[in-house]
Amino acid sequence: MRSMLSRATLGRLPLYLQFIRATDTEKVSAAQIARGLGLGEVQVRKDLASVCDAGLPKVGYPAAALCRDMEKALRVDAPVSAVIVGAGRLGTALMEYDGFREYGVEIIAAFDRTPVSVLHGRVPVYPMQQLACFCASRHVQAGILTVPAASAQSAADEMTAAGLTAILNFAPAPIKVPTGVTVHQENIALSVAYLHMTAGRQ
Amino acid sequence: MRSMLSRATLGRLPLYLQFIRATDTEKVSAAQIARGLGLGEVQVRKDLASVCDAGLPKVGYPAAALCRDMEKALRVDAPVSAVIVGAGRLGTALMEYDGFREYGVEIIAAFDRTPVSVLHGRVPVYPMQQLACFCASRHVQAGILTVPAASAQSAADEMTAAGLTAILNFAPAPIKVPTGVTVHQENIALSVAYLHMTAGRQ
Repeated sequence: MRSMLSRATLGRLPLYLQFIRATDTEKVSAAQIARGLGLGEVQVRKDLASVCDAGLPKVGYPAAALCRDMEKALRVDAPVSAVIVGAGRLGTALMEYDGFREYGVEIIAAFDRTPVSVLHGRVPVYPMQQLACFCASRHVQAGILTVPAASAQSAADEMTAAGLTAILNFAPAPIKVPTGVTVHQENIALSVAYLHMTAGRQ
Repeated sequence: MRSMLSRATLGRLPLYLQFIRATDTEKVSAAQIARGLGLGEVQVRKDLASVCDAGLPKVGYPAAALCRDMEKALRVDAPVSAVIVGAGRLGTALMEYDGFREYGVEIIAAFDRTPVSVLHGRVPVYPMQQLACFCASRHVQAGILTVPAASAQSAADEMTAAGLTAILNFAPAPIKVPTGVTVHQENIALSVAYLHMTAGRQ
C-alpha cells in the first residue's frame, strides 16, 4: 500500500525522479533539486522527507536510495490495476494515454455495453457483464468512468457492485455511490471555464 | 467578463440550475436547494449570494432572477470560445464531449500538424499553421492542449505565440509559458493514483 502523501507531493515525485536521473549524481540535496526545477526549497525538502528517511543535514540524500523510495511511493514496480468503463472515444483515448505508468497505474481492461473490438492496443475490451467477475478475480479496486452523462449512474452502480472502491468520473454528471467508495469528479468543462475566468482577470 | 467566483462555486451552479428548473417554483431558498441536493446550507447560501443579489431574508430568491444570474455567471448565452490543439484520440474525444455547454464553453475549432479530417462532428480541424490567424480573428483566449508529451512544449509555444492566455494541458508533461498566460495541468494518471491511495486508507 502507498504511504499517505498529499496529491501535490505525489504529483511532483516524477519530476524529482527525472531530475535526479538526468543529473547522474551520488548525493543530491533538496536545495539542488529546488534550484534545478525552479521550485521552493521548503516544499522540496518536505516532499523528500515524506518519502525517504535517508537524508542527512548538510549532506543530502544518497541518490540511489531516494530514487528507490520515490519509485516505491509511485508503485513503479507494482502498479495499481485499473479498468475503464465505457470504450467510446474518451475511453479509447485513455487506453492509449501514455502518462499512467509513471504514476504507477496500469489500465488492464476496458468494458462496454457493446464492445466494438476485443483488443484495443494492449488493452482488451470486454462486455460489461464480465466486469464483476473480472474485477473480483484480478482484485481491481480502481475504475475510470467514461460513459455519456445519461448512463453514468447505472454504470457507476455496476462498478460499485463489482467491488470497485475508487472511481474517477469523467462523465459530465455527478454520481451517487455507497459509503466506502471514493469518487473524484473530473470536470473538463469547468476547468476550461474557470481557467478562462481566472486568465481574464490578470 | 465573468464575475470572480471560486472554482467550487462555479462548479455547483449547474446543479442549482437543474434543481430549480426541476422544482418549477417562483421563490426558492438556499435551505430548499441545500436539502434537495444534500449540500450544506451555509455553502449554498454563500454560492447564491455571490451570483445574485435579489435574495431576501426569510423569503428567498425569485427563481427567475436567480436562474438568470446563474446563467449569466455560466455564460450560457455568450459562451467562451476555445480551441483544441492536437486532434488525436483525446482531442477528438473532447470535440464530442457533451459537458462544455453547461459551463459556457464552446469548442469552435481544432488544430493539428496533420489534420486527418476537415470537419469532426460540428468542429472543423485546421492545419496548425492557421492557429495564430484563426485565434486573432476570432479573439480566442482559451486552448486545450491534447498532443503527446514529446510535442507538448512546442505546441504550447505556438499557442502562446497565437495569443492564447489560458491553456488546459492534458499532455502528460509540464509546459513553460510566458508571464500572463495561465496554465492548468490536467493529470489523469495522478488522479487515479491519488484516488487509489486515498481509497486504500478507508
